Amino acid sequence: MGQRHRVVILGGGFGGLRAAQALRSSPVEVTLVDRRNFHLFQPLLYQVATGGLSPANIAAPLRGVLKKQKNAEVLLGEASGIDVASRRVILQDGELPYDTLIVATGSSHHYFGHPDWEHFAPGLKTIEDATEIRRRILLAFEAAERETNREKQSTWLTFVIVGAGPTGVELAGALSEIAHDTLRREFRRIDPSETRIVLVEAADRVLPTYPAALSAAAAGSLKRLDVTVETGAMVTGVEGQSVSLQVTGKSQSIPARTVLWAAGVQASPLGRALAQEAGADVDRAGRLFVEPDLTLPGRPEILVIGDLANFSHQGNGPLPGVAQVAIQQGKYAARLITARLKGEVLPAFVYRDRGSLATIGRAAAVADLPRLRLSGFPAWLIWLFIHLLYIVEFENRLLVLVQWAWSYFTFNRSARLITGGSPFPFDL
Amino acid sequence: MGQRHRVVILGGGFGGLRAAQALRSSPVEVTLVDRRNFHLFQPLLYQVATGGLSPANIAAPLRGVLKKQKNAEVLLGEASGIDVASRRVILQDGELPYDTLIVATGSSHHYFGHPDWEHFAPGLKTIEDATEIRRRILLAFEAAERETNREKQSTWLTFVIVGAGPTGVELAGALSEIAHDTLRREFRRIDPSETRIVLVEAADRVLPTYPAALSAAAAGSLKRLDVTVETGAMVTGVEGQSVSLQVTGKSQSIPARTVLWAAGVQASPLGRALAQEAGADVDRAGRLFVEPDLTLPGRPEILVIGDLANFSHQGNGPLPGVAQVAIQQGKYAARLITARLKGEVLPAFVYRDRGSLATIGRAAAVADLPRLRLSGFPAWLIWLFIHLLYIVEFENRLLVLVQWAWSYFTFNRSARLITGGSPFPFDL
Repeated sequence: MGQRHRVVILGGGFGGLRAAQALRSSPVEVTLVDRRNFHLFQPLLYQVATGGLSPANIAAPLRGVLKKQKNAEVLLGEASGIDVASRRVILQDGELPYDTLIVATGSSHHYFGHPDWEHFAPGLKTIEDATEIRRRILLAFEAAERETNREKQSTWLTFVIVGAGPTGVELAGALSEIAHDTLRREFRRIDPSETRIVLVEAADRVLPTYPAALSAAAAGSLKRLDVTVETGAMVTGVEGQSVSLQVTGKSQSIPARTVLWAAGVQASPLGRALAQEAGADVDRAGRLFVEPDLTLPGRPEILVIGDLANFSHQGNGPLPGVAQVAIQQGKYAARLITARLKGEVLPAFVYRDRGSLATIGRAAAVADLPRLRLSGFPAWLIWLFIHLLYIVEFENRLLVLVQWAWSYFTFNRSARLITGGSPFPFDL
Repeated sequence: MGQRHRVVILGGGFGGLRAAQALRSSPVEVTLVDRRNFHLFQPLLYQVATGGLSPANIAAPLRGVLKKQKNAEVLLGEASGIDVASRRVILQDGELPYDTLIVATGSSHHYFGHPDWEHFAPGLKTIEDATEIRRRILLAFEAAERETNREKQSTWLTFVIVGAGPTGVELAGALSEIAHDTLRREFRRIDPSETRIVLVEAADRVLPTYPAALSAAAAGSLKRLDVTVETGAMVTGVEGQSVSLQVTGKSQSIPARTVLWAAGVQASPLGRALAQEAGADVDRAGRLFVEPDLTLPGRPEILVIGDLANFSHQGNGPLPGVAQVAIQQGKYAARLITARLKGEVLPAFVYRDRGSLATIGRAAAVADLPRLRLSGFPAWLIWLFIHLLYIVEFENRLLVLVQWAWSYFTFNRSARLITGGSPFPFDL
């Protein structure tokens, strides 16, 4: 029996995991490498950051997901580099040979050349990010309750969210719900409904990648939720107690103790390392330019998918860094490998845009679907349905639904725990 | 309007929270101080440590629990001392005057004079302890999968639990379930069912505080779960890769990378500080000796309840550090305060032992009830019923039940996340 074709997949996100699953019936040996032992359903991470769901509700152990797939194994590890010539992944504690490599290590936050801002304005990419943001939000209310100086109290009750893409809008909506509903009557000295939520966006409207009519609907929903939207606003400074903005040429400063980052993302550093090693090119965000079949130029045995890939064919700009793109590319990567082993040729990857959805608070959303543009409650129902449908990797999606329905109907967010770190970083 | 009687309660555990709730209708102002923002249902902490439940399932935000109680407020803070003469609690950032003080700050682990063991053998008292233990258990299997040396592999697959009280027995049972059921088929190079679980106990039987017949039943259940029980075994050393024991005079060493501590507890340090300040006495475990009405000798305005109190009246030894004692003492403390304000006298505190329960794995338990001693499945049903009943502070107890039933019937433990710390502390 000859050695089977070895496929190594780096990254167990939407792209990598879907690729592994789609290789289920192919005559290959799949090794999925991730530094975490779980797949994360990132679109609901904002619910963890705001205490509506627990981390385990949106994380599925990779070994559990793949346990019935006989040709797949999971390896907890992190690739520090790739030896393209000898076709080996370099791990911290060893090497891993491959015949075909799928690189799907995704992206992380980017602070536009100001890495020092991260300390004051955490982003939302990992479970730890989410519990840290949850901790800061809840501690801010606790600190406000303890503060007797009215002015200082109001800086604790001011939350600035930088970036009005889907994550920023979702965080703003959930924060508003916390302030107005969840924490109602829980404090004796402050009124949480006096909370000020400022959503800052450099473009001229919220959800700038959506059609203008939906941006307007989202802006209306945000207004009803008491969220202040600052568009055309460039962040010029983030300190511990304030955010500096440049709004249509004028400087202003917002005193705020809690700043959340939902703006820039940058491809994982493995992209640049691989580019150097393989003589490939990256764009400004660190994404690798790929061929129409998602391979690296001149390296047909290396495929790059998801947030790490810059796929700009058919006259379109790079595809956005969303789950849908990663999932479709993961499936394509698996089909390509299977076709090659049969000596067949596959046409180029084509992205089918099934639409975009963003939710704003309890029962409003905007949906930009191929034949339909919706906002308000109907859009929210579609959002809910699609998100539940897509948590297909999750054995516990019923539980997530129950938890969710519970939070929804009781206005409660039971996962409101301040954990980790010192409980008193009131001087963050 | 005169100032109402001020009751300050330190600690939001079973005793402190129950006292606050029982003062609901009394003409007092209650301030509940805790350094965490949630009440923790400690009896189920082992389920979090073994991935069966999420932290939020067993933690209820204190503000949420007390939000409808108009005469109570919650303060996130930690008492660093008590000024007995001026009747003030000293906080990190201020002072808090009281008319009556209830001290209910509980206990933490104790390593019998070997604080250096803690690094290698974490105990199970907080949410962070539980997620750290969960991390170590899951990482041990990951490390074993990566290890090629057969001997080293087996040290990763050996788990030693020190202390065969209820917590140790529960941890051992849950670990066995993880090894035999949950992780089945999830690994490709190791067989998790080869895991060795050693439960070490200094007394001559497991569950030494239970009747001998129930200890024997528990030992039988543990054997069926493939747990090795070492009784009469004193721990003499805990290093990173082994545990040294003295068993009936003979020294032995168990090579094991994961050691969990379920043995000694010690009263919170506030006990000794208060003893010094008030001229009171503490026992060897740091518990304050209290009067028949739970007050400190000569200090009728200070009550000590729960794990921090040594209540040894009616010829009995000190009451055990269990939830039931704390709950009954919390209720008594509230009744005492209410009676005094009416000028009434209350008889001494009497503990009503409603029995003890410990669970061993999926469907076995032992129950030592006033008129009934049970083991096996019937005891487990009682255990389940009582635990669900007692999560009364939890708005989400229905959710806990659903989560639990899910884990139970699917053999899955969905909260199996390795979070926090570096994902690669393989050289712990």
